Amino acid sequence: MQRRRERVGASLADAGRAGLVVTTLVNVRYLTGFTGSNGALVLRADGSGLFLTDGRYRDQAAAEVPGLEHTITRDLLGVAGPRLADVGGAWAVETHTLSVDAHATLGDAAPGVDLVAADRVVERARETKDDVEVAALREACRVSAAALESLWAGPLVGRTERDVARDLEWRMLELGAEAVAFETILASGPNTAVPHHHPTDRVLQPGDLLKTDFGARVAGYHADCTRTVVLGTADAWQREVHAAVRASQAAGVDALREGRPVAEVDAVARGVLEEAGWLEHFTTGLGHGVGLQIHEDPFIAAAHVGTLERRTVLTMEPGIYVPGRGGVRIEDTVLVTPAATGTPEVLTDLTTELLEIA
Amino acid sequence: MQRRRERVGASLADAGRAGLVVTTLVNVRYLTGFTGSNGALVLRADGSGLFLTDGRYRDQAAAEVPGLEHTITRDLLGVAGPRLADVGGAWAVETHTLSVDAHATLGDAAPGVDLVAADRVVERARETKDDVEVAALREACRVSAAALESLWAGPLVGRTERDVARDLEWRMLELGAEAVAFETILASGPNTAVPHHHPTDRVLQPGDLLKTDFGARVAGYHADCTRTVVLGTADAWQREVHAAVRASQAAGVDALREGRPVAEVDAVARGVLEEAGWLEHFTTGLGHGVGLQIHEDPFIAAAHVGTLERRTVLTMEPGIYVPGRGGVRIEDTVLVTPAATGTPEVLTDLTTELLEIA
Repeated sequence: MQRRRERVGASLADAGRAGLVVTTLVNVRYLTGFTGSNGALVLRADGSGLFLTDGRYRDQAAAEVPGLEHTITRDLLGVAGPRLADVGGAWAVETHTLSVDAHATLGDAAPGVDLVAADRVVERARETKDDVEVAALREACRVSAAALESLWAGPLVGRTERDVARDLEWRMLELGAEAVAFETILASGPNTAVPHHHPTDRVLQPGDLLKTDFGARVAGYHADCTRTVVLGTADAWQREVHAAVRASQAAGVDALREGRPVAEVDAVARGVLEEAGWLEHFTTGLGHGVGLQIHEDPFIAAAHVGTLERRTVLTMEPGIYVPGRGGVRIEDTVLVTPAATGTPEVLTDLTTELLEIA
Repeated sequence: MQRRRERVGASLADAGRAGLVVTTLVNVRYLTGFTGSNGALVLRADGSGLFLTDGRYRDQAAAEVPGLEHTITRDLLGVAGPRLADVGGAWAVETHTLSVDAHATLGDAAPGVDLVAADRVVERARETKDDVEVAALREACRVSAAALESLWAGPLVGRTERDVARDLEWRMLELGAEAVAFETILASGPNTAVPHHHPTDRVLQPGDLLKTDFGARVAGYHADCTRTVVLGTADAWQREVHAAVRASQAAGVDALREGRPVAEVDAVARGVLEEAGWLEHFTTGLGHGVGLQIHEDPFIAAAHVGTLERRTVLTMEPGIYVPGRGGVRIEDTVLVTPAATGTPEVLTDLTTELLEIA
């Protein structure tokens, strides 16, 4: 954590900031290890800092956040303010998440301090994962893949979407997940046309597409994986749609290389769908960073300015959704490796072939 | 939903506002029924409105949000702004949650409009539940109580905290919960001294206190319940602490009456702990509103100005936490009934006696 604080501190110094008031809870966790629901960090540009939380978390903070001065208070920003004023200068604040009211409280408590936008400095640091983070992501993805594989052993036909989704979540917990990364999206038959379908009491039928978007959480880190299979024998339409998505996804994964412009990655995966004539039915984003949050920077989009860095972990998840008929999505969580290494590393190691499950 | 919008609209008109930009997601859900992760509502003081979401939620919004004009866009506030400018005047915005950046986006897009603090107008409306909400809360509490009761049938000794917590969550889902209301707090032995303990691999032992803070979610509404039991035979210290918490909790529940000042409720429950000599070991809040959020207005505290209204649903959860030794909490979710009715209604209907579980 101290290394992370020093790294962000250096960015702040480069930008001429005296420090940063970290109020976005997930950023507080990243920089301190604190897992409670109320905390803030006053981070000086030299990497030193003050951690603030309320009385509920006194002991937890003592255990989780070593190496920092602690202050216990209900009024985190009112108490933080004077500490900024002691240093003076321009302090960065997380204006993308800090509420208007909290910003006013901090400003009132920090006379003479200039509060400026942090410009997502912690989110940018979080884009490249350190060894501890990669290990947690790897484990979350391993658990996820193993759980889906065991679910596929069946039986599936005759059970409801809700029951099968719950079963999968249970398997992840049994295999070592601390929690599920998000509520499982499990859709069957025509429901697969809905990109983010909530499981219902629909009973799985022979001939159904079955789309499962799910993941495990391990040590705070999220896995994100989608597979679409057919229950029984696939028909020609299902094969065609699946093949198009699979080709797009494989090309997209292969494009996740260090130094590659993100917009180019978007163009590659999208191009495959376009060439196959399915682009109009692709209505979601292509992928996103994943880590302490299930959706985090960077987001893969045509408008994204910037290139991929090594140790970034992203999803690649093209899909085709035909209202009233059905849909297919294939998604992996992928680690961008150093350019010299060669291929990206797929952390959700599970076949993307069109499986026909009895 | 239209009735809710008209009720909030009337509050806005009373305060001289042209309308309200609802950006707090749970408030959007309350006023529209929308359950997606990105949406906003431009609510005019006459109760009419414009709903905004992005393309991922086009179909879901069509199904969930009838009776409102819809706009599909990625730039919710940039598109909302001109609609405010069309009306002009003073518009309320949710400055307690709206980020500094989003506020600036909205302001830039609404020239000539005066953006003023909404002063939690939707949160205040949400404090008193309508029939649909009470029914959902009742069901969430029923599921929760039934799940814990079935868990208590055992066996418990010899299993880990983590395993038992997971088992309880599974039972809630089996009984009809759409999800758990929050990650279950299940603590045994000395771990019960930690108010918000994460379940570990500690194995439950004969003689342990077992504290379980948990709840089911039904139709978006949360139950919140805590019980503390002894595995085997309770010793004198466990009996003393449990009796003190139980007396405080019963007095606190009984004080949840229409028209009662909230600060007085706080004093009543706290007074019982003080008289028993345990107040220094009560380190959390006494209770909070519960509904679409697990923690919502009103919060029971000495500093709270205001009286209880009928149809408010709150928790009552005194506790005693002795570091290194153990702790007890008892918590119910309670409905404040009309003054004429008599007693408050405990929705988490489960004995608060000190059970000794084999």
